[in-house]
Parts: sequence; structure tokens; C-alpha cells
Amino acid sequence: MTNTELLALFKEKSVAIDAVMKEDLAIIKSPLLAEIIHHAIFQGGKRIRPLLTLLAAGLVGTPPADTARLAISFEYLHAASLLHDDVIDHAILRRGAQTANTIWGMEPVILAGDYLHAHAMALASEVGGPAAMALIGHATAAMVESEFLQLHNAREILISEENYFLVLKGKTAALIAAACEAGIALNRGTAEQRLALRTYGTNLGLAFQIVDDLLDYLGDPAKTGKAVGNDFQEGKMTLPLIKTLARADAGDREVLSGLLKATPQERSRKLALVQGLMEKYQGFSLARTQAEALLGEALAGLAIFGEAPAKKPLTGLAHYVLSRDK
Amino acid sequence: MTNTELLALFKEKSVAIDAVMKEDLAIIKSPLLAEIIHHAIFQGGKRIRPLLTLLAAGLVGTPPADTARLAISFEYLHAASLLHDDVIDHAILRRGAQTANTIWGMEPVILAGDYLHAHAMALASEVGGPAAMALIGHATAAMVESEFLQLHNAREILISEENYFLVLKGKTAALIAAACEAGIALNRGTAEQRLALRTYGTNLGLAFQIVDDLLDYLGDPAKTGKAVGNDFQEGKMTLPLIKTLARADAGDREVLSGLLKATPQERSRKLALVQGLMEKYQGFSLARTQAEALLGEALAGLAIFGEAPAKKPLTGLAHYVLSRDK
Repeated sequence: MTNTELLALFKEKSVAIDAVMKEDLAIIKSPLLAEIIHHAIFQGGKRIRPLLTLLAAGLVGTPPADTARLAISFEYLHAASLLHDDVIDHAILRRGAQTANTIWGMEPVILAGDYLHAHAMALASEVGGPAAMALIGHATAAMVESEFLQLHNAREILISEENYFLVLKGKTAALIAAACEAGIALNRGTAEQRLALRTYGTNLGLAFQIVDDLLDYLGDPAKTGKAVGNDFQEGKMTLPLIKTLARADAGDREVLSGLLKATPQERSRKLALVQGLMEKYQGFSLARTQAEALLGEALAGLAIFGEAPAKKPLTGLAHYVLSRDK
Repeated sequence: MTNTELLALFKEKSVAIDAVMKEDLAIIKSPLLAEIIHHAIFQGGKRIRPLLTLLAAGLVGTPPADTARLAISFEYLHAASLLHDDVIDHAILRRGAQTANTIWGMEPVILAGDYLHAHAMALASEVGGPAAMALIGHATAAMVESEFLQLHNAREILISEENYFLVLKGKTAALIAAACEAGIALNRGTAEQRLALRTYGTNLGLAFQIVDDLLDYLGDPAKTGKAVGNDFQEGKMTLPLIKTLARADAGDREVLSGLLKATPQERSRKLALVQGLMEKYQGFSLARTQAEALLGEALAGLAIFGEAPAKKPLTGLAHYVLSRDK
């Protein structure tokens, strides 16, 4: 499979996923609720999670007809958590467009997140039964627990790489791993196959987030839809910065931690200096190396499937995650 | 069964319910998350929903050992929706104590609601399988849809009795009906028995809320933990007020709708006048008559169970709802 064929496959499947979501969401009665949820879901998004459920199910045989309906529940859970995250962070922009809370205020957006959350779980239960629900239950609990860990971390200016990964596992990797494993479970895969996809999903999720961290400093705003250096301006401790701080000499460390205690405006002004320090201490390249290592672990997880053709798209997706520019 | 015996039974069961919740919630890792959730659940509450699941299950045989674990999922869903409601309404007090959002701010409270919501659904699925999940899925969707209907209604000052009941069905009755029906479903009751409990729960839920509306104007603050006239001060259109407006002459109607457009302070000052008008047009007694009629329908729903002794507590609970003073 060439890269072009892979991208065409992902595109085709994500168009199909969108069609299933549109049909499914037609049950919403309130026009405002429907509008908010459509904004949350169809304003972009890479459909990584439902794509993973579909591809994982395909690894162990022809996926059952309703696999797509289980798959979309993971996109709903993701969208529901972004709706609440944006309320909590008072975020104004997402994917280059106004957030739902900016347009409609926090009240209906909290409720819309609740609707999507409950609807996703009911759907997952209907299609995937107790196995899917147990996976989602663990993933959503991990997501909230990690947000609390993050709230706790926020009190300290410098966090460790260990803490960074602990938060990430709950916040991003748990749901991605569940989306992968649910596809196997739905198609009656073995415990070993489920574990393989959990390993794949967890490591892919971690690598995915590190690439996000890198794009924040190094990406092209025209492609990412985000301003460069957003994370640093918000004082967010992401992996390239953590790596840099760990290797910086006393003077440079002082400069960086001083800036982390300063105002967002001050941090914004000093972005070029910070980027220079991150280059100097190889914060970017070390983070990228770690993402590559995690990707290696993700792919090693798939070894038990041998040379099955259905493995190709999952391998391709992993490489896409690492090379993406948006 | 005397009234005293009934109250003793409810007390005994609610103590047991609390013990099951405490044990179940011990899985929470974050101390702050655990604190918020304990505050939300153990700061009062009548445990009506889990009590109904237990009693309903008992109607069709000895309840399975894990009925209590299904039952608590309904208390969790209720508590999760109150957490988010209080954030949305910027509420300061609930049950005479500070709301979670007053103590911890909205950020962790939105997340704690999400946790409880997801945990409740995972638990219900684990114990009650797809049948319980379908019930909860419908009930939670109805809850959010009704909040949107209420947001829509809020734009109009005068709402119809029909609209009031439409909101109420989603907001309060749907989850209570689901709690009842889930007990029957778990204990393998028939479709007819499920329908009977759905009818009972829906009408009980409606009557419950009307009694709440009445207590807001007529209750003893020392018992209810709420100031008298709170609903009117907030401009909330509850049944006694809707009934009054429908029967008031042009002049009195003018006075009331003028106040509904005025400030909360102005409404608060004129509370005695409003209460007088509600007495004059029998707003209170008409609302009470309607609550009694709904209760009659609730009990008629139980007719198929004949003279089963297990019917007694459900009949007693219905009468308690109507006669309660807090």
C-alpha cells in the first residue's frame, strides 16, 4: 500500500464515519442542541479514534455491519470531552474556529457535552455490550482522574517527565487504546489480540500527543490552525520543554523557570529566545526520538498479526501520526 | 405496614444504599475528586431513586444480590446532573449547604460530574446489561433535551402548563421512571410489569416535583433548608404560578407578569402580594389536586400486582412524596 493509497483509504473511511454520525445524530430534537453538537463534531477533527476501531476490528476478520456505530461512540466521547475542556479552559478558538462556549456560552455547552457523553455510552453498550462499556468506563475514569492530576500538577511550575506521561496516559492514550481494543472485542478477538491493540493504542496515543507538542512550537499555523508557541504562552509544560529544562545549565534553567512564572504576554515576547534554548538543549529532537520509540512499541504490539494485509493501514496510520504537519 | 414501619424501612434501606456507595467510590484515586463526589452525594438527599430500584426489583421476586449496585447508579446520575445544574445556574446553596462550585470553582466540578456520570453508566451496564443501559440512555437524553426546552422557554415569560409538564417529564420523571423500570428489568419481570413501573415512576416523578413547587412557597425553611419564595424570586414558572396566571383576571395577571419582568429584588419584595394572589386564584390547591391525581395514576399503574405485600412500600413511598414537608 502506498502512502497515497493509505490516505485515500483514511479519507474514504472518515467520510463514511461522518455519514454514520450525521444519520445517528438526527434523533436530537432540540435545534440548539443539534447545532452545538454538529459544531463540535463537524468543525474538523481527524476521526482517528473511530478509524482505529474500524481498522482494529478488520484485523481479526470482516467487521460486523454495526462496527461503525461502535466506532463513532469514541468520536462522540472525544468531542464531549473537548466541549467540557473548552468551557473549563475558557478557550476561544479550536481548529481555527470559535469554540462552542464562545458562540453559545457555557450553559448549553456543558449540557451538550453531557448529552454526547451519555449518548456515546448508550450507543457503545447497544452495539458492543458489556465488553465495550467496561473499556469505556475505564477510559473515561482515567480521563477525569488525569485531569485532576493535571490540576494538581498546575500548582507546581516544573513537572517531571514521569508526571507528564502519567497525565498523558489518562488524558489521551486511554481513550485511543479503548477505541482500538473495542474493535477487537466486538469482532470476538482473543485476549492476546486485545492486549496487542491496547499496547498499540496506548503508545500511538502517547506519540500522537508528543507530535502535537512539537507542532505547537514548530508547526505551520496555516496548516495547524493554531498560533506558534501557544503552549508556552499558556505556561504548559510539554515534553520538548521538560526535556530542555532537564538538560539546561543553571543559568538557562533560571531564565526558563523565570519565564514560566511571568505573565503570558511576557512569555509570548520571549518565544524566540525559548525556541533557541530548546534547539540548544535538543528539546525538540529528544522529544521526537521518544515519539519514534513509542511508535516502535506500538508497532511491536502488532507483531502477533504476522503479515496480515489488514495490518497495513494500522502501520500506516502510526507513521502518519509521526509525520503529520497538522 | 404502619407509616412508622415504612419510614423505618426506608431509613434502613437508605443506610444500606449509602454503605454500598461508600464502598464503591473507594476506587477514586484523586483526593480532590473523591472529596467533591462525597460532598455531592453525602450532603443529604432522600435516596428516592435507588430506593425505587430496590423496591421495584422486590415486586417480582427476591432481588439479585447486586441490585443495590444497579440502584446506586441512579443516585450517581442524579448527583452528576445536580453538580452540572449548579454550575450552570451559578447556584450558591443546595440543601442548606454550599454547592460544590462555590467551594471548589466550576472547573473541577464539571469534571467530577463527568466522572460520576461515566461511572454510573459503566456500573449500570456491568450489573444491568443492555436493558439497564437502554433505559439510562433514554432517560439521560430526555434530561438534556428538557433542559434545552427550558432554555427555550426561558425566553418567554409566560409558559403553558403543557410546556411545564413537557420539561418536567424529561427533567425529573424520566430518570425516576428508569430507576423503577430498571429494577423490574434486572429481576426479569415481564413487559407488562415494566410498563406498570414506568407508569408508576413517571407519575410519581411529576407529583414529586409539584410537591417541590408547593414547598417552595409554603414550606418551613427550617425543614426544607431553602428560603420561601426562592422560585418566584428567580422568576421560575412553576405549577402553582402557572395555574394562578391562567385564572387571574386581567388586572391581577398584569401585576404578576409585570413582576416576572422585574428584578429578583423587586419580586422578593412583593412575595406576600403574590402569595395572596395565588391563594385567591387557588393556585396552590389546584396544583395539589393535580399532584394527587398523578399519584392516583401512579398507584393505578401498580394494580396488576394485586395485593402483593411487596407493593406496600411503593404505595407508601407515593403517599410519603405527597405528604412530605422537606
